Amino acid sequence: MISKHKIKILRSLNTKKGRLLHKMILLEGKRLIEEVLSEKSKIKKIWITKDFENNNSELTKKINFEEISNKEIKMITGTVNPQGIIAITEIKEGSLDNIFGNAIILDNISDPGNLGTIMRSACWFGIRNIFLSKECVDPYNSKVIRSAMGAHFKQNIVIDELDSLINHLYSNDYQLLSTDLNSNNNLKNLKIDKNKKWGVVFGNEAHGLSKLTKEKIEYNVKISQFGPIESLNVAVACGIFLYEMSK
Amino acid sequence: MISKHKIKILRSLNTKKGRLLHKMILLEGKRLIEEVLSEKSKIKKIWITKDFENNNSELTKKINFEEISNKEIKMITGTVNPQGIIAITEIKEGSLDNIFGNAIILDNISDPGNLGTIMRSACWFGIRNIFLSKECVDPYNSKVIRSAMGAHFKQNIVIDELDSLINHLYSNDYQLLSTDLNSNNNLKNLKIDKNKKWGVVFGNEAHGLSKLTKEKIEYNVKISQFGPIESLNVAVACGIFLYEMSK
Repeated sequence: MISKHKIKILRSLNTKKGRLLHKMILLEGKRLIEEVLSEKSKIKKIWITKDFENNNSELTKKINFEEISNKEIKMITGTVNPQGIIAITEIKEGSLDNIFGNAIILDNISDPGNLGTIMRSACWFGIRNIFLSKECVDPYNSKVIRSAMGAHFKQNIVIDELDSLINHLYSNDYQLLSTDLNSNNNLKNLKIDKNKKWGVVFGNEAHGLSKLTKEKIEYNVKISQFGPIESLNVAVACGIFLYEMSK
Repeated sequence: MISKHKIKILRSLNTKKGRLLHKMILLEGKRLIEEVLSEKSKIKKIWITKDFENNNSELTKKINFEEISNKEIKMITGTVNPQGIIAITEIKEGSLDNIFGNAIILDNISDPGNLGTIMRSACWFGIRNIFLSKECVDPYNSKVIRSAMGAHFKQNIVIDELDSLINHLYSNDYQLLSTDLNSNNNLKNLKIDKNKKWGVVFGNEAHGLSKLTKEKIEYNVKISQFGPIESLNVAVACGIFLYEMSK
């Protein structure tokens, strides 16, 4: 049993306003919550239904939780068939201070599935810094969290003006480049020193790179095309780029 | 103005049953419909709102269409803010007869966004054959169509038993392989003759490859991992694989 007031707060975490107000995000589903649990002490509270408890004793005997009804979970998450487990965790803001490792800079990425998938791939390829221009979709949106599969809790996520992000990387001696469909440089012949720090910019799904990125970043690359379609999905292009950089 | 009966038929195209019954799919949005129009004569009929016509005279003066109200489009598509243009086109079934070119085989892909993105990447890398096991999500689902960005109209899409698809490729001298997180073979050291025909299998988002695929296909590869996350998104893995094969 959970109070009406608490349900109201938890529901508000579905909105950007609510997340900013409470500095908290809502997690849903067994796989994601298990992934975050493995990060230790990042989860503030867990609620579980009776049914979920009965079917997942391996997990539930190891953790502290409160009981919740299926109806209450539905009220909080809006999910039609909830899995019976939700949790909350604090938003830990990233920082530009003392950054180390390579960086992905997202210039107005608008689709939450794409953003989450980019964060997941970045984590797979060991990229720690995810820098988002203020125009990007909120990285704590529930769809982003679902597609990122726990990457949020392993990365340095910074939201700032694109200009500040790019300037900061330049002043910290990063090599910067972007991916651009119209580039003359092929990714296969990449001219980047992989032993030095780098940052790469990906642009908006429909409009590509912003004017600012084009002005500030001279070196761009493209992925060779072999068939009749306008473009690659940005999360796929990012995955291919990171794969090439990992070699 | 469009009859109630017609609206009912068009609405039914949002379901697999309706699409199979009428052998037709519903397209929505300017970018997608323009892409399909460039394929010539694949579109059977277009409906456009007055507002869309006024704002897109470049396009609308070149095509035949009927007028429709915004309210009617909403009733048909269920979209909250429709773009004011819909169209229908026939489902053209693919075939295993006389196949040429390489193939992607999808073993129980369940997410429509992933399927569409895989088709889009396949088109970019010039892969013509998309073979789907019967367990896959319907490729004519509207979300698949939206993410595939027109790839449907350029590919040979075949839905069949996984067993039949694999056997057919073997008997046509295709080299077959799969991608598998647990593989001991690295994609970077791929042992495939790129000048001969090949087919690659991708497995389900949550459960990976089916037992059948594992039994039938001996050679599998993985993409090297550098960070702490369970897996890569399947559409990203597919993009990376196709990029490596394109080199």
